[in-house]
Amino acid sequence: MSNVVIINGNPSLTSRLNGMIQYVEQRLAQAGIEIGHIRVAELPPEDLIKAKFDSEAILHANKKVEEADGIIIASPVYKAAYTGVLKTYLDLLPQKGLSGKIILPLFIGGTIAHLLSIDYALKPVLSALGGRYILGGVYAVDTWITRNEQEGYSLSEELIHRLDEAAAEFADLLQRKN
Amino acid sequence: MSNVVIINGNPSLTSRLNGMIQYVEQRLAQAGIEIGHIRVAELPPEDLIKAKFDSEAILHANKKVEEADGIIIASPVYKAAYTGVLKTYLDLLPQKGLSGKIILPLFIGGTIAHLLSIDYALKPVLSALGGRYILGGVYAVDTWITRNEQEGYSLSEELIHRLDEAAAEFADLLQRKN
Repeated sequence: MSNVVIINGNPSLTSRLNGMIQYVEQRLAQAGIEIGHIRVAELPPEDLIKAKFDSEAILHANKKVEEADGIIIASPVYKAAYTGVLKTYLDLLPQKGLSGKIILPLFIGGTIAHLLSIDYALKPVLSALGGRYILGGVYAVDTWITRNEQEGYSLSEELIHRLDEAAAEFADLLQRKN
Repeated sequence: MSNVVIINGNPSLTSRLNGMIQYVEQRLAQAGIEIGHIRVAELPPEDLIKAKFDSEAILHANKKVEEADGIIIASPVYKAAYTGVLKTYLDLLPQKGLSGKIILPLFIGGTIAHLLSIDYALKPVLSALGGRYILGGVYAVDTWITRNEQEGYSLSEELIHRLDEAAAEFADLLQRKN
């Protein structure tokens, strides 16, 4: 069975980004893929800011990445790039920690103008980490996701369409890998 | 009198990057420029990782930036880009927080291959923050800086030459600004 880890670089754990993540998770679960989570904002802040490579919590997270077939990198766009929070964790991965992983980026931003932050900011970092199978990724604008009264999220039709396509491609690549 | 703030995004406070910073500081001090420091790794880690925009320590740092004429952005290169630690602080600056500032990047890396991380990774972020007067910056390779027995650093001739040039250009622009 394939196994995917979602690295969530959102400093806030309540964000419309979760709407995207949950949707993709459901699709992957339907395809029989097991999902794990690394929420960077739940790792010890001092270990991240002081770059403690030997932190137990960081090593535990790195082990999840090591054992995964696929990685989802989820982040809001801050100042035209991935969040610093996300990068503090990526900085603590081993040198070629994403080698052999199939990678799907999921970004959310206030404006479509920052769509290319996936390609210009994130992908070079993933490449430096040995990432090679990097999907195009899905970029959502905040307004495409609305929060429902009971915790859930509604996604625009366009976003659902893109997430369906990305999840199908991702699941297909994962299944061929194993 | 001009006033410069050095934003140091190194997670470790003992680093050869300090050799570059100290050298430029001396040059600027000789030109009568006042220097302040923001060491991101000394800000409260939780405020950075949870993106607490209303943190007193962050607001205090932001005030230093607001009052500065020039900003030095200093970082080691991690995974082909600025550190996540640096970016956690830049993410907490106000929307156009670098507007009107003269900016000098100082980066250090293990290989000359990551020279362009200043242009490809850092500069788009500075631009999103309103930065317009961004100098070329100085990139050093680790081996150009050696640690002396008594705390100090020795810099290679080439690096000294580049830092002299950058500091002179920076000081000149600062003095014309005021």
